[in-house]
Amino acid sequence: MIKVGIVGGTGYTGVELLRLLAQHPNVCVETITSRSEAGVKVCDMYPNLRGHYDTLAFSEPDAKQLGALDAVFFATPHGVAHALAGELLANGTRIIDLSADFRLRDAKVWSEWYGQAHGAPELLEEAVYGLPEMHREKIKTARLIAVPGCYPTAVQLGYLPLLEAGLIDPQQLIADCKSGVTGAGRGAKVPSLLAEASESFKAYGASGHRHLPEIRQGLNDMQASPVGLTFVPHLTPMIRGIHATLYSQLTARAEDLQALFEQRYANEPFVDVMPAGSHPETRSVKGINTCRLAVHRPEGSNTVVVLSVIDNLVKGASGQAIQNLNLMFGFDETMGLTAPALMP
Amino acid sequence: MIKVGIVGGTGYTGVELLRLLAQHPNVCVETITSRSEAGVKVCDMYPNLRGHYDTLAFSEPDAKQLGALDAVFFATPHGVAHALAGELLANGTRIIDLSADFRLRDAKVWSEWYGQAHGAPELLEEAVYGLPEMHREKIKTARLIAVPGCYPTAVQLGYLPLLEAGLIDPQQLIADCKSGVTGAGRGAKVPSLLAEASESFKAYGASGHRHLPEIRQGLNDMQASPVGLTFVPHLTPMIRGIHATLYSQLTARAEDLQALFEQRYANEPFVDVMPAGSHPETRSVKGINTCRLAVHRPEGSNTVVVLSVIDNLVKGASGQAIQNLNLMFGFDETMGLTAPALMP
Amino acid sequence: MIKVGIVGGTGYTGVELLRLLAQHPNVCVETITSRSEAGVKVCDMYPNLRGHYDTLAFSEPDAKQLGALDAVFFATPHGVAHALAGELLANGTRIIDLSADFRLRDAKVWSEWYGQAHGAPELLEEAVYGLPEMHREKIKTARLIAVPGCYPTAVQLGYLPLLEAGLIDPQQLIADCKSGVTGAGRGAKVPSLLAEASESFKAYGASGHRHLPEIRQGLNDMQASPVGLTFVPHLTPMIRGIHATLYSQLTARAEDLQALFEQRYANEPFVDVMPAGSHPETRSVKGINTCRLAVHRPEGSNTVVVLSVIDNLVKGASGQAIQNLNLMFGFDETMGLTAPALMP
Amino acid sequence: MIKVGIVGGTGYTGVELLRLLAQHPNVCVETITSRSEAGVKVCDMYPNLRGHYDTLAFSEPDAKQLGALDAVFFATPHGVAHALAGELLANGTRIIDLSADFRLRDAKVWSEWYGQAHGAPELLEEAVYGLPEMHREKIKTARLIAVPGCYPTAVQLGYLPLLEAGLIDPQQLIADCKSGVTGAGRGAKVPSLLAEASESFKAYGASGHRHLPEIRQGLNDMQASPVGLTFVPHLTPMIRGIHATLYSQLTARAEDLQALFEQRYANEPFVDVMPAGSHPETRSVKGINTCRLAVHRPEGSNTVVVLSVIDNLVKGASGQAIQNLNLMFGFDETMGLTAPALMP
Repeated sequence: MIKVGIVGGTGYTGVELLRLLAQHPNVCVETITSRSEAGVKVCDMYPNLRGHYDTLAFSEPDAKQLGALDAVFFATPHGVAHALAGELLANGTRIIDLSADFRLRDAKVWSEWYGQAHGAPELLEEAVYGLPEMHREKIKTARLIAVPGCYPTAVQLGYLPLLEAGLIDPQQLIADCKSGVTGAGRGAKVPSLLAEASESFKAYGASGHRHLPEIRQGLNDMQASPVGLTFVPHLTPMIRGIHATLYSQLTARAEDLQALFEQRYANEPFVDVMPAGSHPETRSVKGINTCRLAVHRPEGSNTVVVLSVIDNLVKGASGQAIQNLNLMFGFDETMGLTAPALMP
Repeated sequence: MIKVGIVGGTGYTGVELLRLLAQHPNVCVETITSRSEAGVKVCDMYPNLRGHYDTLAFSEPDAKQLGALDAVFFATPHGVAHALAGELLANGTRIIDLSADFRLRDAKVWSEWYGQAHGAPELLEEAVYGLPEMHREKIKTARLIAVPGCYPTAVQLGYLPLLEAGLIDPQQLIADCKSGVTGAGRGAKVPSLLAEASESFKAYGASGHRHLPEIRQGLNDMQASPVGLTFVPHLTPMIRGIHATLYSQLTARAEDLQALFEQRYANEPFVDVMPAGSHPETRSVKGINTCRLAVHRPEGSNTVVVLSVIDNLVKGASGQAIQNLNLMFGFDETMGLTAPALMP
Repeated sequence: MIKVGIVGGTGYTGVELLRLLAQHPNVCVETITSRSEAGVKVCDMYPNLRGHYDTLAFSEPDAKQLGALDAVFFATPHGVAHALAGELLANGTRIIDLSADFRLRDAKVWSEWYGQAHGAPELLEEAVYGLPEMHREKIKTARLIAVPGCYPTAVQLGYLPLLEAGLIDPQQLIADCKSGVTGAGRGAKVPSLLAEASESFKAYGASGHRHLPEIRQGLNDMQASPVGLTFVPHLTPMIRGIHATLYSQLTARAEDLQALFEQRYANEPFVDVMPAGSHPETRSVKGINTCRLAVHRPEGSNTVVVLSVIDNLVKGASGQAIQNLNLMFGFDETMGLTAPALMP
Repeated sequence: MIKVGIVGGTGYTGVELLRLLAQHPNVCVETITSRSEAGVKVCDMYPNLRGHYDTLAFSEPDAKQLGALDAVFFATPHGVAHALAGELLANGTRIIDLSADFRLRDAKVWSEWYGQAHGAPELLEEAVYGLPEMHREKIKTARLIAVPGCYPTAVQLGYLPLLEAGLIDPQQLIADCKSGVTGAGRGAKVPSLLAEASESFKAYGASGHRHLPEIRQGLNDMQASPVGLTFVPHLTPMIRGIHATLYSQLTARAEDLQALFEQRYANEPFVDVMPAGSHPETRSVKGINTCRLAVHRPEGSNTVVVLSVIDNLVKGASGQAIQNLNLMFGFDETMGLTAPALMP
């Protein structure tokens, strides 16, 4: 049984960590911090946790207390993990950061997209990008994990087999992505109101979104040449789920793409390649850590269309964080993550 | 490890049994039957089950095969359990019937509401009404369980402490109930289409609904005199959940109703009395077997208002069925039913 | 063509006035005020108004400017109309107040429920409660209209025929009401987020809600004795619509309640008594000023159940405001309010 | 006042025609046919029409009766208009066909995609494709209009300025489209149930959809060379609305694309080019005949992204049908189509 803490636990990725960890046999949540809600019991804020964390309350963050834990999750706005990571690592506490603080290897690029100086560039070299399907071995020995963003997870897992195999033109990638509204967080903003966001569909960030450099970096790692990527995120009127529709152009001769995907992910516990001709639904992964994929090749063209769905709060955040923790601590990779999706 | 079967598994209560039993350590689902889908793999119909039941397929119902199992769940239209129950019981197979076939003790009343003769009146005497909060001891030794309906569960648990204590007028009960659309089943009917049922709210069955005699029978069992009950169900645009708003008139002097409820349910693993002043949300029980209750007493009147929420597919059907199975087979009552609700 | 203004136009009742008035042949919106959004064009905030109000922008409220108009709508938080009404009336401008400022005739009761002193008690005597089905003649000559609240409109229209005819016990009224989320306004509050409010149902204010004294006052006006009313509002996951389920006990001998309702509302342009046995859906009034009613009498009891649906933003606010304006200025009562509901 | 009929009026495009025509000053709906619902009053099936069409009932289709009308709308499955069109035209009745029967100029292509022989190839030459922004002059004198499909309308209006100006590579077009569920019609199918389609997002027809040849034909008409188009439709959990996200590659030097769009559509009453940087929401066109467009050029690439939204039942079907009727009969093009969208 290891002891963990959660920094910044009032948002959706925080409560999702609590929900999932309630089912984890080897993890005990000792601490959850929140400046704004210090003193409030987590089950008073999130009644689904009644009966599971009846005494746990939000507390002020305390580096000493956190430094006594085996691992700390950061479910914070960007910049917070920068400030605390060094001290925790020095105390031997491992860090699983769900924010964007350590996702980009280049501190300069980070600064450009996040509008502030990088607060811990000295840690970038040892930070490991926590996409197990790409970096499993490094994760096992890592002290500092940057959990991938939600869109980047769905997009990278969809393009991975094609780019690794060198079958598509990396210069002509188009990722048309749709997300449920929890992707926008739990902040009280007018556009996220039910009365504004339901019964409607819209794009946002069509001219540039912070996940773009992260996706680009990940896709570049899959092959030699720099990618050319257009990424347009959209808001869809539902709570959870991301659907990425990924377009690319075949450059090599037609292959059996279905077999390529099945082989690449044959041993991946959380990637499910659907049968040929399938159209995965986001609800089929509601609440679980699985990414379901389908690959299509519309007749009469060289275009490949990959459909990739995840739950943005699970495989796109808290579930993937726990998958990383399992790898770091030598637990079975699926521990605590085995329930089926809630459907209907 | 016991072996169970599910008769009529294509509907929502069938797939919900599969979802929940996938987490049950002591149960193995051997058989699931469906005349219309025989041969289809359950995970092809319900992709959330991929990776959990990869080989299980729907089969034609076969009494002999079912009779070799420890227990059989009926998730069927009314009348089907009537036809099969006798033979299965004779073979020593225990039955947990999620349909209405054995809920009413009076075969004549059953016939009136269901428009056909009762098919197994000889079994009514031994059928046990599977509301553990009322009939736990009988359930433990039962061979044939009638799992309560969804509305009846929410309504009975809400009135139980008041009626048992004799504090309210049993002649003046009003149950205003709201259900998500899965309550109408998985049948392809125009009024259940998203385009028809979303962004709208309506009552139905205001002049009489089949759950009325079942609720009446249950409330009658809680005290001496026959109840007078008005029951109006409504359809609310969401997938899961029932919210019962229960009105009654205090006849005895004001008591501490909050304490009454807390004491009555102190040892119940699946009834959660919320703090005074609470308004339970249906989402707080999404996917779980808990009933959350709150009791209010509007100022200046003798009216008591009880708010009662359940997930209609879990405590209102498949979860309660498993709770009964746990009791019948001597397992821990909460086995397989311990995950927190999915929220948000 | 009369000239009107809207004070406090950024909320949902403000934009709904603009939407409806765009179709009104005799009204020109000269001014719309908002302190927070002064300078912003209304069509930049509400793109549905593009092409209809391309130059109209929010402005700082200016009593002189407003005083030059024929009529001013207040779509403001409580207290604002108190402060401005006197001056505008003195200038001959008629006022249609959608806030609660002039709904209660008793300034003391108002203070108790709204937690502040009444700001214009001297105007209470001449304020007319703008429910045309009750007070049409007074409205025609009024200078100051208090537009009824959304719940009060649905509840009063449902009880009106029964109370006027003296058929029910006024001491035993129960109004179980369900509202879409626009009833909570456009404020950025966490509970109103799509991720919080969708796929869930809950009660609120079960122990007391500000619409209670308003409903009570209205029902008292319909007959001699003081009413005893329990009112429980609920939030349902949809944008627009109120469904009131109204319970009462018959005291007189059984009559033809259907005929009673049909006769009472025979000449009302905005009340539609549905055929016997109907269950009106809120979507059938989406975007329109109609209240649809159905009356049920469950067998074997003296309980009457009335189902009443309105669009909370139209008959429950802005549409009813325009209906009042039409009466005040001698226009056809339905002018600008004749489009069918949007369905599906 | 002209007299019109609707053939096949029970579906969503039929009721939408009735809703819109109720506001049209120059049109009287004389007849609406339905084999399955003959004898049923339209307002019994669609309560939003109560008070607007209180006597109109569905009738058996009767060619003679229809042939006496000025115009007939077909809101039928494919094949029906083929069978009746010739006779009606011979009687001088003009036809506005909302089905796919006359959209493709090549009968052979039609047969391939619709799996049956074309029933009226002799009429193809005089059929006019009813996209007024492309074919206004022809429409004015047409006797037989093929109203464009919903996806084709959104996609063609988005690409039109770019293709006409020759600025993009017609070989590299990708249309990623999202539709509300009314696009699937009012048929009672399991995948369209609220319990199945809400809280989920999925693609369908990724390998080929019947709107593909129609879109291709339309885009080919805008410039000289044959287009290469990938079209992937998706289902989004809402009632109405289509959002098309259109990708293409600039071939000419950078121009002011915003100005290009604004100029092209300067005189179009139903195309609204939003300000630079906008992200149109589908709800901004809910219930209206407008298409709103925004054009984006993500930095560092030659990719152009056009966002195009319509209401699939209005500009994508019934509204556009009425726009065609207005042109054919010399009415103001916007007659009956001037109300603002319902928002929120």
